[in-house]
Amino acid sequence: MTPRRTVIALGGNAISPAGSAGTAAEQTANIHTTMRGVAALVAEGLDELVLTHGNGPQVGNVLIKNDLARHVVPPVPLDWCVAQTQATIGFTMADTLVFELAGRGIDRPVVPVVSRVRVDADDPGFVTPSKPIGPYVTDTDEVARRRADGEDWTRIDARGWRRVVASPQPRECLDRPAVELLLHDGAIVIANGGGGIPVVAVPGEPLRGVEAVIDKDLAGAVLATELDAEVFAILTDVRGVAVGFGTPDERWLTEISVRELRASATAGEFRAGSMGPKVEAACRFVEATGRRAVIAALDAALGAVHGTVGTQVHP
Amino acid sequence: MTPRRTVIALGGNAISPAGSAGTAAEQTANIHTTMRGVAALVAEGLDELVLTHGNGPQVGNVLIKNDLARHVVPPVPLDWCVAQTQATIGFTMADTLVFELAGRGIDRPVVPVVSRVRVDADDPGFVTPSKPIGPYVTDTDEVARRRADGEDWTRIDARGWRRVVASPQPRECLDRPAVELLLHDGAIVIANGGGGIPVVAVPGEPLRGVEAVIDKDLAGAVLATELDAEVFAILTDVRGVAVGFGTPDERWLTEISVRELRASATAGEFRAGSMGPKVEAACRFVEATGRRAVIAALDAALGAVHGTVGTQVHP
Repeated sequence: MTPRRTVIALGGNAISPAGSAGTAAEQTANIHTTMRGVAALVAEGLDELVLTHGNGPQVGNVLIKNDLARHVVPPVPLDWCVAQTQATIGFTMADTLVFELAGRGIDRPVVPVVSRVRVDADDPGFVTPSKPIGPYVTDTDEVARRRADGEDWTRIDARGWRRVVASPQPRECLDRPAVELLLHDGAIVIANGGGGIPVVAVPGEPLRGVEAVIDKDLAGAVLATELDAEVFAILTDVRGVAVGFGTPDERWLTEISVRELRASATAGEFRAGSMGPKVEAACRFVEATGRRAVIAALDAALGAVHGTVGTQVHP
Repeated sequence: MTPRRTVIALGGNAISPAGSAGTAAEQTANIHTTMRGVAALVAEGLDELVLTHGNGPQVGNVLIKNDLARHVVPPVPLDWCVAQTQATIGFTMADTLVFELAGRGIDRPVVPVVSRVRVDADDPGFVTPSKPIGPYVTDTDEVARRRADGEDWTRIDARGWRRVVASPQPRECLDRPAVELLLHDGAIVIANGGGGIPVVAVPGEPLRGVEAVIDKDLAGAVLATELDAEVFAILTDVRGVAVGFGTPDERWLTEISVRELRASATAGEFRAGSMGPKVEAACRFVEATGRRAVIAALDAALGAVHGTVGTQVHP
């Protein structure tokens, strides 16, 4: 059955192919392929549709540029870097999706919304930043200098050090009103890219951007909940959620209740930087709304949304 | 009299103070000051409002970063750089304008629209690119290498060489439908930042971004015309248009017909890189719509829109 309102979270593989250099041409070609699949969904009758997406490699590249040019032009803060990636990924999605829709006789505006997501200033993530971003650095003088500039760095492994930032909990999608207006008017909306531009509310001041990145699936769950979506689909590079992943007892989950999925998560089945946040995001959406979430492969979007493939998470 | 629908083009001084290093903090503080003035306009009763803005120094900084990091991460094309500046300037305007409006008891969404502007693939600007962008370069080997990469460079003066790109004529604001929808729903919209992301239409393909920058005042005139704005206001760092500028016969224009202003432009009164495009933009809007344009100082926005200060251009 075709849902009335759907939020789809697109993983990094929707934008950059694994191992690519990350040129604009590669991103554009890959995004085009992804949007062909999205256009097919719309052609199948999907009505109100919001896309959200990751930005890991892209924001990593922006950070490298910031750093290598810091002796000439002032680096911009991390919230600005996220905004930059929302714009480039967003308009490329719009260009290619409009083109693919037109080929199917569908004329609908596709609008990327520059999206801010509110986090708590006292989120524990700010006390002990732990989300690695940007490139590995091996030069310890460089690390010392960056620490003196106020950044947090941690030694990852033999490859060296990486900057770590807070990954706070998303609390509120501040640009949801614009998303709602555009949906209501028939647009397909791209929102919360890269988990959203992280901001905190400060009494008596405008919103303040913070040095943080928000998990895009958790931010997608907040958006899908606020929008009262009928389905929240997380599309990634595996076909769903497995327990005993990589062991002889590996078992792919197809239909599961949110209570059972939470139990597996609590039992430590899912990796923190990988399937963990996707499972958490799916559970939060289902718990908050009593509706259906799905985790599935990018190329199985149609079946995922229609409820026939991937891991379908039910109330 | 308060116009029903107004488009305001904000000059570079609305974003970066002259001579600033261009940090995010400086831009934010300066944008906040500008948005305080815009909030005052809205509080005075301005209803439908679209802001557009320049991005010269900002896109220059992005280009420097691109270049200094090109041995590590692939540079992104110029249309992507424009998109990046639309997002950072746009959401900072939204943050500070919403805050200033709230202080006046006004609750309206402020939405930056990532905006593409169509240009002609056979625009003469692409044959002989002449718009300098980015930093001066003195190293002739560097210039030779960049030329071998397909870029156009020209020697400006003793300070060295600069990259030159096309500055094609804006033909169509492709995201106008989103702007209209948002205006209709009561939002204040930021659009066409930096003149818009330059794209060309190619049969059988998605829109294609091009290495070009569009003049923000000319793009603003197209947007104001398409939106059927009642007033198109160009706010800058001087109090209006002068003939005989800098001579003993200098005379500031207050009320002028578009025909007279065109005659002065044709007589070579206005500098190509400076007042020239503003006068051209004002003339185009008035000629196309039979409505009023104004060129005035940023801090005189209220009088400019109400028709009492600056150079008021009439049909």
